[in-house]
Amino acid sequence: MRVLRVETAEPYEILIGGGLLTEIPQDLPQVLETRHLALITDETVRDLVAEDLARILTEAGFRTEIFSFPPGEASKNMETVVQLSRSMVRAGFDRRSAVLAVGGGVVGDVAGFLASIYLRGVPYVQVPTTLLAQVDSSVGGKTGVDLPEGKNLLGTFYQPRRVYIDYGVLTTLPLSHLRNGLAEVVKYGAALDRGLFEFLEAQAEALLAYHPEPLEEIIYQSCRLKAEVVSRDEREAGLRRVLNFGHTLGHALEAALNYQILHGEAVAVGMVAAARLSEALGVAEEPVAERLEALLLRLGLPVRLPEGVAPEALPAFLSADKKVWHGRLTMVLLRRLGEFVFYEDPPRESLLEVLKEISI
Amino acid sequence: MRVLRVETAEPYEILIGGGLLTEIPQDLPQVLETRHLALITDETVRDLVAEDLARILTEAGFRTEIFSFPPGEASKNMETVVQLSRSMVRAGFDRRSAVLAVGGGVVGDVAGFLASIYLRGVPYVQVPTTLLAQVDSSVGGKTGVDLPEGKNLLGTFYQPRRVYIDYGVLTTLPLSHLRNGLAEVVKYGAALDRGLFEFLEAQAEALLAYHPEPLEEIIYQSCRLKAEVVSRDEREAGLRRVLNFGHTLGHALEAALNYQILHGEAVAVGMVAAARLSEALGVAEEPVAERLEALLLRLGLPVRLPEGVAPEALPAFLSADKKVWHGRLTMVLLRRLGEFVFYEDPPRESLLEVLKEISI
Repeated sequence: MRVLRVETAEPYEILIGGGLLTEIPQDLPQVLETRHLALITDETVRDLVAEDLARILTEAGFRTEIFSFPPGEASKNMETVVQLSRSMVRAGFDRRSAVLAVGGGVVGDVAGFLASIYLRGVPYVQVPTTLLAQVDSSVGGKTGVDLPEGKNLLGTFYQPRRVYIDYGVLTTLPLSHLRNGLAEVVKYGAALDRGLFEFLEAQAEALLAYHPEPLEEIIYQSCRLKAEVVSRDEREAGLRRVLNFGHTLGHALEAALNYQILHGEAVAVGMVAAARLSEALGVAEEPVAERLEALLLRLGLPVRLPEGVAPEALPAFLSADKKVWHGRLTMVLLRRLGEFVFYEDPPRESLLEVLKEISI
Repeated sequence: MRVLRVETAEPYEILIGGGLLTEIPQDLPQVLETRHLALITDETVRDLVAEDLARILTEAGFRTEIFSFPPGEASKNMETVVQLSRSMVRAGFDRRSAVLAVGGGVVGDVAGFLASIYLRGVPYVQVPTTLLAQVDSSVGGKTGVDLPEGKNLLGTFYQPRRVYIDYGVLTTLPLSHLRNGLAEVVKYGAALDRGLFEFLEAQAEALLAYHPEPLEEIIYQSCRLKAEVVSRDEREAGLRRVLNFGHTLGHALEAALNYQILHGEAVAVGMVAAARLSEALGVAEEPVAERLEALLLRLGLPVRLPEGVAPEALPAFLSADKKVWHGRLTMVLLRRLGEFVFYEDPPRESLLEVLKEISI
């Protein structure tokens, strides 16, 4: 097992290990004063993981109740938060109780937000069950829900008391979910840590076979890198934007496809575009795109725009991003593998050129 | 004008003055970097105050837009927050904008909550327009909305950047609203500050005639007292419960009457009951009830249970309060005027006895 301490205003620890779920009951009292737990999950994870975890906790003397909602981004709204809250009030959860978030990114965002506003805030603990949530949502304290007008428009910054990452649960999910998370790991390597990038190159097949040692290593390194970035920029003023490597175009692609694409797949294509743009604009001081594409292909991730997506259609979705979040468009490009640069308002023609290159 | 500095984790200042509204445009840049303001209000205050303030701000070069909702506690829910948020997104309010809450307690709670979760938090400024909101909501950072299961069950702790208290606007409201706020001022005096209590005794008629000097004084003293309590107990661990003087029974009375009673009237009766209980239990070291009742009567506030409320019906509503907020019932009683004591689980018989005394 590995332990990562995250140095936010209220520090907490991420525990990473295979079979860690069974150790949660004996560890929880170190971070929670209560034994009254609301276990928030979705209906899929409920069957795969949450029921088991609830049983383990109950046997250890915790008073545990499961509250679940339909899986998927469509549930990530205020109505779900209100329904969960009402169920918790009726079940007698008071200020001296706590929330356990058990699931992927949507569950983490919804449950974290709920915990941050329930009776003006109760403690919460995360048990992310997808690789994407393990390497992405465990650090940063972002919670939130969508509005019809856009994603994550309502939310809070709220840190968990503890994060338990059990990579043993990853085998309960289809391989596409593992790939989805690996795209984010590639992001950390390509933008921030050449060593991690080369580790992925060396261990690609072992990772796809769920070997525990490399899984533990990439989860630890990804969380460590994100924690370093976030601890220097807790409120998203600047540096944190490095985490958007591959996401600017990735988000545009998701929006263009009305989210009928896995996040990791959109990010993979977005990273390829950003790498090629880095070369086209003369920012890259070594070839970066080819090696990145080769790794993504070995991991079973896409490196070309999906069929039916016209390159010309994407820039429109970029400006939506731009409007809500910043006055201008800051893209994350690569100087070399493992080293990012910020680039303000890249020329539209260069962007379009690159998108055309990677359209099928 | 008087200035009160509130020493919370992120300190802010309360400015108190007659005609202060017109000075907001020149002061705002000291606390906000933006000139893009969402002015949140209800439909009543919109006509009385908010339209004027928006005009003043627009003339001074601020980009201001008003968002309003129907007045009253019935609007204090998540649906209102979602609707306001959606309107703000569509109107282009981004992270670099700010919220101005203009209105009474409901507007302050809703707008503060909205500001705390909109794009994970934008700055906000309060312009309370009722005496109750001026002496009660300006300090403490509590925001929130109701659920069908109970009041204030979802919310945050979120401090404003500035509070502007213009007691000049109080004349736009019926006298009953002034009385409603004066009940809270009596609370601060009776529980915490004998000098304030005696000032109220000396100035009761002047206050009811809206004389500016005594109004400024009682608003300043009330905010100062609340700020002292809150700064020592920002997360409501203990001391802050002193602010519940008169509110334990007041809340029960409101619930029994399905909130068809002004908050201040319920608190007035609750304070009388608490004062009489202090004497009955031998906690009071001087007579407290008679002088308290005399002051409340002069201020036009009730000192007896409303017709139709049976004393026997109230304890049931107390236990609801008890269940959600604490394991046990802590009441605030008086040792003398200006000096409170906490009292745990007063005997039900004594409570009932006192309630019978003050039933008509």
